Amino acid sequence: MSELLVKSPLFTDLYELTMAAVYFEREMFAPATFSFFIRRYPENWRFFVACGLEEVLSFLENFRFQEDELAYLEGLGLFKPEFLDFLEKLRFSGEVFAVPEGTIVFAGEPLLEITAPIIEAQLIETFVINALCFGTLIASKAVRSVLAAQGRTVVDFSARRTQGIEAALKVARLSYLVGFAATSNTLAGKLYGIPVTGTMAHSFIQSFPSEKEAFFAFAEVFPDNTVLLLDTYDTLAAAQKAVEIAKRLESRGKRLKGVRLDSGDLVSLAKEVRRILDENGLSYVKIFVSGGLDEYKIADLLARGAPIDAFGVGTKMGVSADAPYLDAAYKLVAYDGQPVTKLSTGKKVLAGAKQVFRFEEDGRWQKDLITLREETLKEAKPLLQKQMSSGRRTSSPKSLDEIRAAFKEELAKLPPELKSVRPKPAAFYPVELSQRLLSLQQRLEEEIKQRELAA
Amino acid sequence: MSELLVKSPLFTDLYELTMAAVYFEREMFAPATFSFFIRRYPENWRFFVACGLEEVLSFLENFRFQEDELAYLEGLGLFKPEFLDFLEKLRFSGEVFAVPEGTIVFAGEPLLEITAPIIEAQLIETFVINALCFGTLIASKAVRSVLAAQGRTVVDFSARRTQGIEAALKVARLSYLVGFAATSNTLAGKLYGIPVTGTMAHSFIQSFPSEKEAFFAFAEVFPDNTVLLLDTYDTLAAAQKAVEIAKRLESRGKRLKGVRLDSGDLVSLAKEVRRILDENGLSYVKIFVSGGLDEYKIADLLARGAPIDAFGVGTKMGVSADAPYLDAAYKLVAYDGQPVTKLSTGKKVLAGAKQVFRFEEDGRWQKDLITLREETLKEAKPLLQKQMSSGRRTSSPKSLDEIRAAFKEELAKLPPELKSVRPKPAAFYPVELSQRLLSLQQRLEEEIKQRELAA
Repeated sequence: MSELLVKSPLFTDLYELTMAAVYFEREMFAPATFSFFIRRYPENWRFFVACGLEEVLSFLENFRFQEDELAYLEGLGLFKPEFLDFLEKLRFSGEVFAVPEGTIVFAGEPLLEITAPIIEAQLIETFVINALCFGTLIASKAVRSVLAAQGRTVVDFSARRTQGIEAALKVARLSYLVGFAATSNTLAGKLYGIPVTGTMAHSFIQSFPSEKEAFFAFAEVFPDNTVLLLDTYDTLAAAQKAVEIAKRLESRGKRLKGVRLDSGDLVSLAKEVRRILDENGLSYVKIFVSGGLDEYKIADLLARGAPIDAFGVGTKMGVSADAPYLDAAYKLVAYDGQPVTKLSTGKKVLAGAKQVFRFEEDGRWQKDLITLREETLKEAKPLLQKQMSSGRRTSSPKSLDEIRAAFKEELAKLPPELKSVRPKPAAFYPVELSQRLLSLQQRLEEEIKQRELAA
Repeated sequence: MSELLVKSPLFTDLYELTMAAVYFEREMFAPATFSFFIRRYPENWRFFVACGLEEVLSFLENFRFQEDELAYLEGLGLFKPEFLDFLEKLRFSGEVFAVPEGTIVFAGEPLLEITAPIIEAQLIETFVINALCFGTLIASKAVRSVLAAQGRTVVDFSARRTQGIEAALKVARLSYLVGFAATSNTLAGKLYGIPVTGTMAHSFIQSFPSEKEAFFAFAEVFPDNTVLLLDTYDTLAAAQKAVEIAKRLESRGKRLKGVRLDSGDLVSLAKEVRRILDENGLSYVKIFVSGGLDEYKIADLLARGAPIDAFGVGTKMGVSADAPYLDAAYKLVAYDGQPVTKLSTGKKVLAGAKQVFRFEEDGRWQKDLITLREETLKEAKPLLQKQMSSGRRTSSPKSLDEIRAAFKEELAKLPPELKSVRPKPAAFYPVELSQRLLSLQQRLEEEIKQRELAA
């Protein structure tokens, strides 16, 4: 993974560098704490799957300006040589508290807090937000298809429509992490060790003199792995041809793996095709469906009784089509030992380094409590863990399969009413603030009003 | 750019490889033509800016499986050694016809057609669709902000919220191509030679004992490049402080560049801040606005008379939030010299290699005509040009600034009613099909019905 993704510290908004130059000039090297959190849920979402931490840690470990990057900055004519010398030597030396990759979290909760000399904590902002936002966005979107499919197989088909190639690789990894069975993206299969899968395209059928010949040819080369695409010309006519192919495979001691429907009225077609297959003793042949699917369509297909065994989910998951970004922020919450906040309209920030405690009863989560970091609670589990200390990871990264298994256990503890594709409007997981956090917030807001607005 | 982006031929859906294995087994090496087109417009869009071609050509030129990639494929246990040997030697040897990077095109028109031995043309599908879709999506979305701003400055602020880091780099390039003035993305500035710009963050203000001290500190280090962020605590109180800073800069012979508003009622705040600045003889200080902007908000702010000089456009452009993907396709239209089509419900494909002719009158486009490639027309300009022949580029790539300048000229020829952010429902650019293309299509559909549905 690492060699394919951009890791340059120059991936930062220019203002991070100009602000850093001012801090440098003023010798402001005190530690700052920044907190990353998601402000609100997209419609019908009730939880997030925090992802992207692995990328962040890897970026921080390797944080180092290269010669050509410093030369570029010099050429901008904005920065003094002393500052560029400082950047050349700069490494990330801070501390990272964060929830582990794949943790289920809720709106308003800090997922990650970084404490480091303010220049370091500021320069990494652009990368940190991008990585955590996109990772969390896609994992949270993808698990909705897994939940909608109620145990049926779901496969990532998004590679051709994601927002870039890197995005496609990340989507394959993230969707697998939350329970997808496989991806069509071969490079992702190689990079992350994800099972790869696929069927056939319309163009394949069209390049043969007839549909039947195309089916024959494929089944001959891949007798154990044939899923016939039925909708190039006429789905039901093609289903009859699939029966022939299946019989021919049976005569060789093989079994047709499945058929795929990619357009038309998928409910009635799936029922008809299932009937044709069953009438011919082919109840083992799976029906695979694709074509503009998302969690809503999956839920509706199943609610209408479509006999579907597996779903290929592409574009709408891969770009999180109905919610293509998260309203998230990475905000300063303490500087030089003092908690800080701001008053911008509608964009409040909880001051101070924080912790989130989760209360569980009988294997089900009851509520979360956001506290100051220094508060301790015996009866609940703290979610943010120290991931990095003095710029070094505190533990080695977990494998994708370990994260996937841990996520599956997590998901079982989430209250069921939050797992619905269309949850009740009032069904939200309770997230509370500790009394100490509330008092601090109130005191700081008063102080700001007196200091800044009195003038 | 090239070294940062994934170019592995393994970036392909697995079915491209299994289909290729069947073609190989059957010795199907005849040329196939695939056509890329966008099926329909997102709401309120009336044209597209075709982008992504440069990436496609670069991918094709470097198409080559590496040893570790072939070893991975071998390990899947799906492919015969002969086929893997074939892949090892495989290079792209085909022909590419396409509209140049940055060409304005319309729904239904082919933007790119590739003719190559079917295995080659098929294996590259996933990459080609991804690159053309995302490039065209973002360029088409970004130009809408440029048009809405009516000549005012528009800057890319999206780096932290795009769908991945590669996406952020591409967005900076694409938005600049269609007329953005600069980007905040420093790495994109280095890679593509785009002007970089920035202001300051709320965290910067908060890390100083007071807002005024933060303003002073920045202006002292960057007396020629200071844009003060006003909304950390109270925008109008901050505007008064900005006046002080400007006066102090004037006493040094310098000028405050601008102020930035990032939250609240931007219309009334901009008017108030403008008044405060003007009353203090600071009419030269620009007002810069950001915060959830897109083309609709820009148009509305200007329609309501907000005195804004520049717009920072981020997330909503960077992920094309209201239309995060294009309904586009890369479809087989000819194989072994014969045009082909398919009948899937709602997903028709125009058969045969094609050309698009554009009719212009008095510096304004009148209509486009899609024809068979072999048709010629004297009175109109053919849009698709030969970009690659026998796997080699036919010309060297143009610079980003050349493409940007050419695009600006193109945009001037687009009928004005199509440039509106909210065009009239019936305002569409006329795209017609030639008689020969129509007849061919009809004949092929009849043939398929007789061949495939008679059974």
